[in-house]
Amino acid sequence: MDRHAPPCGRDGDVIAHIDLGIDERAHPGIRGPMRFRPETAKPLNALAEALLRAPHPTLTPGERELIAAYVSGLNECRFCCATHAAFAAAQLPSGMPLVDRVLRDPVDAEVGDKLRALLRIAEAVRRSGRDVTAELVAAAREAGATDLEIHDTVLIAAAFCMYNRYVDGLGTLVPDDPVVYEKAAERIVRHGYVES
Amino acid sequence: MDRHAPPCGRDGDVIAHIDLGIDERAHPGIRGPMRFRPETAKPLNALAEALLRAPHPTLTPGERELIAAYVSGLNECRFCCATHAAFAAAQLPSGMPLVDRVLRDPVDAEVGDKLRALLRIAEAVRRSGRDVTAELVAAAREAGATDLEIHDTVLIAAAFCMYNRYVDGLGTLVPDDPVVYEKAAERIVRHGYVES
Repeated sequence: MDRHAPPCGRDGDVIAHIDLGIDERAHPGIRGPMRFRPETAKPLNALAEALLRAPHPTLTPGERELIAAYVSGLNECRFCCATHAAFAAAQLPSGMPLVDRVLRDPVDAEVGDKLRALLRIAEAVRRSGRDVTAELVAAAREAGATDLEIHDTVLIAAAFCMYNRYVDGLGTLVPDDPVVYEKAAERIVRHGYVES
Repeated sequence: MDRHAPPCGRDGDVIAHIDLGIDERAHPGIRGPMRFRPETAKPLNALAEALLRAPHPTLTPGERELIAAYVSGLNECRFCCATHAAFAAAQLPSGMPLVDRVLRDPVDAEVGDKLRALLRIAEAVRRSGRDVTAELVAAAREAGATDLEIHDTVLIAAAFCMYNRYVDGLGTLVPDDPVVYEKAAERIVRHGYVES
């Protein structure tokens, strides 16, 4: 399954569950509800910026976007998965081929042991916070993960359990055209989430 | 099951998955990770304030906290459920008896048809955003729900799928003493989330 370029977007004639007061084609996915409700868009964007783009001592923006894309793929949120896969690919040296492999299965992907262990924690968080065991945390630590990395992985995974449900719970439009996501990636890499 | 006053908190001698650098007894639940990572605490608190306490044309803070408590209960996040049950009880005329009934089952609770329909949407969001059907939305609209109420219900439910996973994914401490939650409720009602 080609998760980063959804093969079958929602029919363009179907409208979202609520009247977002915008042209959905111009503002697909999360961008519609964010225009509908700027009061909540502000902290939602600020959180994404802090988690995914703000300076970090060890995790690159590409690695953090990869965790976001991975969780979104597991949640089968096509808009978020395609979006953050494109954002990860644009910021990782190995680009989309690596992202593709991680989305299929991190076990075989050419990521370091630390990132693989963090992805395992993210996968547990996605099911339930209570599924994060001391063993998973110890394994990540053994692979070199710091407390900050474990914290941020848990919160990125948790946050995408929110963003995914927000986007799909309102039935927003999922564009088919991969160019939409590539253009969004250019914008995010240049301007970040807060100004987008 | 007495979900708002957890009968069996985590053993106080067990420490969270990471070193939060604080006395967990003084800062239980989400308050530990928030102190550990103020950069993400800020948008997390701003989001809670916008969703649960900011002026709203139709949904009271108590009703919004009730949705948060209900979702947290379904996610079996004892800290968040006890916290937001106390916050809801402090702000609803019928207090904890009503909150208790909603946590057990909203079908039998004495809430209006609109709030019951919104709780049904929240329950779907908790499972997956894709479980929100046109039928659930139509039923809420028929019971008088506005687009803003449907939007905010979806985002409150989605946000608590994040907060719950954040709290439990880091293995934070869950106090047994109901007084902890009542005091937190006093603080939130007076000062809100942003200054807390």
